[in-house]
Amino acid sequence: MGGDFGPRVTVSAACDALKRHPQLRIILVGRTDDLTPYLRRHRGNHLERLELFHAQDVVSMEEKPSLALRNRRESSMWKALQLVEEGRADACISAGNTGALMAMGRLVLGMLPGIERPAITAAIPSLKGHSYVLDLGANVDASAEQLLQFAIMGSVMVEAIENRPSPKVGLLNMGSEENKGTDQIREASKLIQEHGGINFIGYLEGDDLFSGRSDVVVCDGFAGNVALKSCEGLSKMLVRQVQGSFRRNLYRRLVALLATPILRDLKQQLDPGRLNGATLLGLRNVVIKSHGGANRVYFGYAIDQALEEARLNVPERISGLVQRATLQTAQQQAVGSKTR
Amino acid sequence: MGGDFGPRVTVSAACDALKRHPQLRIILVGRTDDLTPYLRRHRGNHLERLELFHAQDVVSMEEKPSLALRNRRESSMWKALQLVEEGRADACISAGNTGALMAMGRLVLGMLPGIERPAITAAIPSLKGHSYVLDLGANVDASAEQLLQFAIMGSVMVEAIENRPSPKVGLLNMGSEENKGTDQIREASKLIQEHGGINFIGYLEGDDLFSGRSDVVVCDGFAGNVALKSCEGLSKMLVRQVQGSFRRNLYRRLVALLATPILRDLKQQLDPGRLNGATLLGLRNVVIKSHGGANRVYFGYAIDQALEEARLNVPERISGLVQRATLQTAQQQAVGSKTR
Repeated sequence: MGGDFGPRVTVSAACDALKRHPQLRIILVGRTDDLTPYLRRHRGNHLERLELFHAQDVVSMEEKPSLALRNRRESSMWKALQLVEEGRADACISAGNTGALMAMGRLVLGMLPGIERPAITAAIPSLKGHSYVLDLGANVDASAEQLLQFAIMGSVMVEAIENRPSPKVGLLNMGSEENKGTDQIREASKLIQEHGGINFIGYLEGDDLFSGRSDVVVCDGFAGNVALKSCEGLSKMLVRQVQGSFRRNLYRRLVALLATPILRDLKQQLDPGRLNGATLLGLRNVVIKSHGGANRVYFGYAIDQALEEARLNVPERISGLVQRATLQTAQQQAVGSKTR
Repeated sequence: MGGDFGPRVTVSAACDALKRHPQLRIILVGRTDDLTPYLRRHRGNHLERLELFHAQDVVSMEEKPSLALRNRRESSMWKALQLVEEGRADACISAGNTGALMAMGRLVLGMLPGIERPAITAAIPSLKGHSYVLDLGANVDASAEQLLQFAIMGSVMVEAIENRPSPKVGLLNMGSEENKGTDQIREASKLIQEHGGINFIGYLEGDDLFSGRSDVVVCDGFAGNVALKSCEGLSKMLVRQVQGSFRRNLYRRLVALLATPILRDLKQQLDPGRLNGATLLGLRNVVIKSHGGANRVYFGYAIDQALEEARLNVPERISGLVQRATLQTAQQQAVGSKTR
């Protein structure tokens, strides 16, 4: 029911996804009266893998998460998460209110053991492929322990999704020197080094989001959110400048015409929708947040992302690496007490 | 002596600036043996406005600020700041070690009354001209009071430099809702509103760095640094992608040839050097930091910036607005105690 366009986009994208993935089954959760009109347009035998699940209420995009948590237990968001919790679905996808999705996710599904708070992550384009930044704004700050947990989750994510063993993990800071940054960051750097299961390459700076130096960029939600949104702002300004620059006179308009395929290419490369589908990491199950403004094609990418993470058991793998950390710490402490 | 290219760039840029500004006088501070070779190439009657001031030592780019502060009192940086402190110069310009410049600036020149810590600011291009972001990395964090001081300094800066009365000031946050952000940010929002002398427009998000919604963007040094460097990283990646895209085949190379003036235009618009010259606000005098990698032309922009800020008495104006705030608070407290 969520996002800027509601069922018009989500229902159509779901039907498209059923065509793409012959093993996929989808449960559409929401007001069935609102959903069925869009279904009629998508007849075909793949619809036998589609199910409707009625939920009377809807969480609005502006609603405060704490209020949604209290008042919207009959909403499509809550019900969809419940289906996952009951094992009737392997993942939940929403284009709705991010804060509410996170709060409900924590309450309905629960956190993985050893993870205190969820983090939002997504692939962003880099000079060498993708990098995964987390947290992109689930939390306003993060303790050193939480930054370690983000490092573990990011590492597992890249290893699973990008099929890259021992991915590089860096910690976002404002300088590469040892003594830079907040206490939390310096402490986190120690914790990540001590963990042993993470290929930690040290401090990164903002430009490393795109340099490809690291597969995972760990930061608190405030920094991640500011970085992501600043870059969105810059991209928007650049697109306008390029358009303006190619329209200034007749000659330029002509060149623009000749350059159409190149400009189309570039626009596609720059299009943030191409990487739609952010992951709420740290929950016991797969929960994917689509951008509210995603169109039918882009919402489909969020569905594919959910499918991939469920298939690869990302939450379970995170659990494994967290437990390994806990075991090691326990062993170290045991050795420590024997030595004493 | 500083920057990636040392006197080769700084001496030449100084000579160029003397030609541009008939009233300007420049004192070159550094090892005279290293400076004079570059002077010989710039003969002309404007050189009578140029003076050499010998300083034996140099602060290196990698040096820890605390160590530089202790060990480099014979350095060009220290000596240049001393010339300002003694009233023999109106501004100091350096392409050297930022941390050392800030630490020495605080010690030699001192802070303006009512300002606790310096902030680095610079104009960045926006859809409506420029916006001034501060702090860009002088401090790793900032208290609510310090964010208020940044707001005052940014407001004065835009009013003076851009000649824009009552400039808009916004506070960088991760959402526009009342309840978002850290305690410091929420508290700072109250303080700025109460100040009365600032045209405060509320919370901004990262994309507002470029949207032109606000003339001043206030944030702590970590967030400002991450935003700036992320955007630098994105710009670099985009330039590479555009170049790659225009080189893929013969047709595209031909179009690139036709598009040369447009691409040159765009590259110029994107060039961060065009806005070289960051200001260390909060010190008693004008101190400008040039990018270490600035070339002769770009270092000249830093000199122009220093000239402009000295001419417009930016530090004095900041002092005025800070005192007004202190006065108001004192009056409010006086009224408060009478009412009681």
